[in-house]
Amino acid sequence: MTGEEIKSAHKQYNLQSWSRQKSINPIPLQKAEGIYFWDYDGNRYTDMSSQLVNMNLGFGNRAIGDAIKAQVDRFCFMAPSYAVETRSELAKTIIGLMPDNMGKVFFTNAGADANENAIKMARMYTGRNKVFSRYRSYHGSSFGAGNLTGEPRRFPLEPGIPGFVKFFDPYIYREAISFESEEAATAYYLAKLEEQLGYEGASSVAAIVMETITGSNGVIIPPKGYLPGVRALCDKYGILMICDEVMAGWCRTGTMFAFQHFGVKPDIVTFAKGVTCGYVPLGGVVVSKSIAAYFDDNLLSCGLTYSGHPLACAAGLACVRYYGEADILGNVNRVGKALGETLEKLKEAHPCVGDVRYIGLFSAVELVRDKKTREPLVPYGKDPEGLMGKIIKLLSARRFMTYSHENCVLVAPPLIITEAQLTEELSKLDEVLGIVDKEML
Amino acid sequence: MTGEEIKSAHKQYNLQSWSRQKSINPIPLQKAEGIYFWDYDGNRYTDMSSQLVNMNLGFGNRAIGDAIKAQVDRFCFMAPSYAVETRSELAKTIIGLMPDNMGKVFFTNAGADANENAIKMARMYTGRNKVFSRYRSYHGSSFGAGNLTGEPRRFPLEPGIPGFVKFFDPYIYREAISFESEEAATAYYLAKLEEQLGYEGASSVAAIVMETITGSNGVIIPPKGYLPGVRALCDKYGILMICDEVMAGWCRTGTMFAFQHFGVKPDIVTFAKGVTCGYVPLGGVVVSKSIAAYFDDNLLSCGLTYSGHPLACAAGLACVRYYGEADILGNVNRVGKALGETLEKLKEAHPCVGDVRYIGLFSAVELVRDKKTREPLVPYGKDPEGLMGKIIKLLSARRFMTYSHENCVLVAPPLIITEAQLTEELSKLDEVLGIVDKEML
Repeated sequence: MTGEEIKSAHKQYNLQSWSRQKSINPIPLQKAEGIYFWDYDGNRYTDMSSQLVNMNLGFGNRAIGDAIKAQVDRFCFMAPSYAVETRSELAKTIIGLMPDNMGKVFFTNAGADANENAIKMARMYTGRNKVFSRYRSYHGSSFGAGNLTGEPRRFPLEPGIPGFVKFFDPYIYREAISFESEEAATAYYLAKLEEQLGYEGASSVAAIVMETITGSNGVIIPPKGYLPGVRALCDKYGILMICDEVMAGWCRTGTMFAFQHFGVKPDIVTFAKGVTCGYVPLGGVVVSKSIAAYFDDNLLSCGLTYSGHPLACAAGLACVRYYGEADILGNVNRVGKALGETLEKLKEAHPCVGDVRYIGLFSAVELVRDKKTREPLVPYGKDPEGLMGKIIKLLSARRFMTYSHENCVLVAPPLIITEAQLTEELSKLDEVLGIVDKEML
Repeated sequence: MTGEEIKSAHKQYNLQSWSRQKSINPIPLQKAEGIYFWDYDGNRYTDMSSQLVNMNLGFGNRAIGDAIKAQVDRFCFMAPSYAVETRSELAKTIIGLMPDNMGKVFFTNAGADANENAIKMARMYTGRNKVFSRYRSYHGSSFGAGNLTGEPRRFPLEPGIPGFVKFFDPYIYREAISFESEEAATAYYLAKLEEQLGYEGASSVAAIVMETITGSNGVIIPPKGYLPGVRALCDKYGILMICDEVMAGWCRTGTMFAFQHFGVKPDIVTFAKGVTCGYVPLGGVVVSKSIAAYFDDNLLSCGLTYSGHPLACAAGLACVRYYGEADILGNVNRVGKALGETLEKLKEAHPCVGDVRYIGLFSAVELVRDKKTREPLVPYGKDPEGLMGKIIKLLSARRFMTYSHENCVLVAPPLIITEAQLTEELSKLDEVLGIVDKEML
């Protein structure tokens, strides 16, 4: 098929995620390598969001590709009830990367069903019904994961599942109160959370589910002491702490998993994306040893055809090994430092930049109409003038490919990006922010 | 890793679907080809359930394997908002196999999320809330798909999602009434369904969801006129008809999709499993042209990272083409005839066989304590003596590998099985049924 035919068949036969289908205008893509991809006219684009924050190692990673091909020659699939080398080995490897309290892995297809199964397990294990999650969050769009989700993408799933309760994120930049220190903010949010647990009945709460670092909803990094404080509340009330590491896991933030920045041990960790970089779909739920032991004698009433898919596990094993062998964390921390410094300069230079938040190679630029009032460039849940779409177009015209959410632009390039490549791309962002300053405020 | 190491790591680090983990004893598998697979001691097993009724073309299909390898050399993944050859081509191919009322495909990772998205779309399109599905059914185990599911695997998801309503299947063999004809049964079930729609308020019902032919819950084949009757009720009340073809689709029953046996055009079809034979996880939702058109101007509030995964679509394209090129339907109908004839003989010969149900290479043997009273060999939802497990073990001791559900043994071999292979395997089933007759009634 030619590029035009591919595009035309896409529009004619595909339903595209999160879109009004009449308004889509997909670029047909021919090839890809590292942080770049090319259309059928030979134009080169830079992937500044790692696609959907999954391609941590970029395109064309040879180690993963070879592992997939080798597994094709053995067998692609075998049902979850058989023991298969790649499945066993990957589960063992993942547990080896986790804190010492963690015991077993339940594999899924992706992040949404990882979160679905995490809450099922938490309810079975605790015998409790309620589940707490946060407003500025995205955990997937199936009914369970979508009811965890706090942002408007959950609305089509309502009336919601009984027992799903939302609490507020530690979103300090947009808080009405101004805090004297991070510690003061933490104390405030923890007190509010405990108060809400009281109103809901803490003894009926099975789990508190959080993206360790909120992803699409604005790279919200928890203030100092926040996660240990949530951990303490969980311990106090017998609630399970579930960290959603679907985006933040697998080296993205400068540690293997994001919760490792904060000195906490979750009871359950969900993962997906970076475990295979999306080369083959894979997700999973890691549970603590005591949860694992519970299911020794109690039925694990969870299952899916492709749990521990052998081909996906082959890709995952090669990918996870590559993170270590290629010292990806070293690069993330080195280039991530440069990213942070440049973002701070952009914030200083541009009236439209209200806040920049970054950790490792995970960052967001939050746009405002007014730096002082912090009025967002577009109101929550709306964009009547299509401003954010225009900004993404200005970026993509410069071959800087990413996406926006609310009033934030996400910057999360593949973790193999060099400092020189990053500098080149951020100069494009600088240019576009200049246009926003002049034309949109 | 050795076979023993693989097994031991599986037990130590994996949570296995639908199990008490202490009781699992997984066979470590080394290689596979066609309808056979081998453990590390060189024992050969026959796959008589196509794993989880997904490996329609068996193991080691070269066309699919080569397509996967070729796509690895291009790129494994690209986000759903880009146009990609395998995604466009597979969507076009699937629509080409569907009735002329069908318009577009929304790709998912597997069957559960296909059903999740189907109900979301039905609710958005109709603006209605309620969803009807049947008791003897399995649609997946995430919250949405699990709430559609009628059997006990939905219980851990309760209290359920508001608006999910169950109705009775046309399970004639277990009906208290004995009908004079298939048509009489159909008239009875349709009248009951219409009565129930009335009680629930038909104008608040978005969709009726059915496995076209019920799968794991006993290969229940709708009686003559039943599906056209449901179609007519849907038309009368403005309800969408959703056929879950996750198991029954892709040549399994002797037609490309099972609904084609019954002369109906659904509004939505969900698929998974056989589209790639599970070589790479893939599922999807096919919607009618009018539903597709609705989402031209209305936001499709559905999405997932791996929607239309390029590697999965490459596998799917090769797989779907292979069905046609290798005349798989010809084999299904030829060998399926032999399967039906042998099953009828087994029913005649064995006191423990209450009923056999079969269509194409999709069949179930329903076991009873007493042919006359039809008392099931094990009561619904229970198996206090572990009888069904014992029967599966007797079969697997003869290297006849399948699974059971309630009081039924599933027989659904890969669609490439020859008549000679089938005969050899069914003689093992005959032998085991003889033991059941003698020792378990």
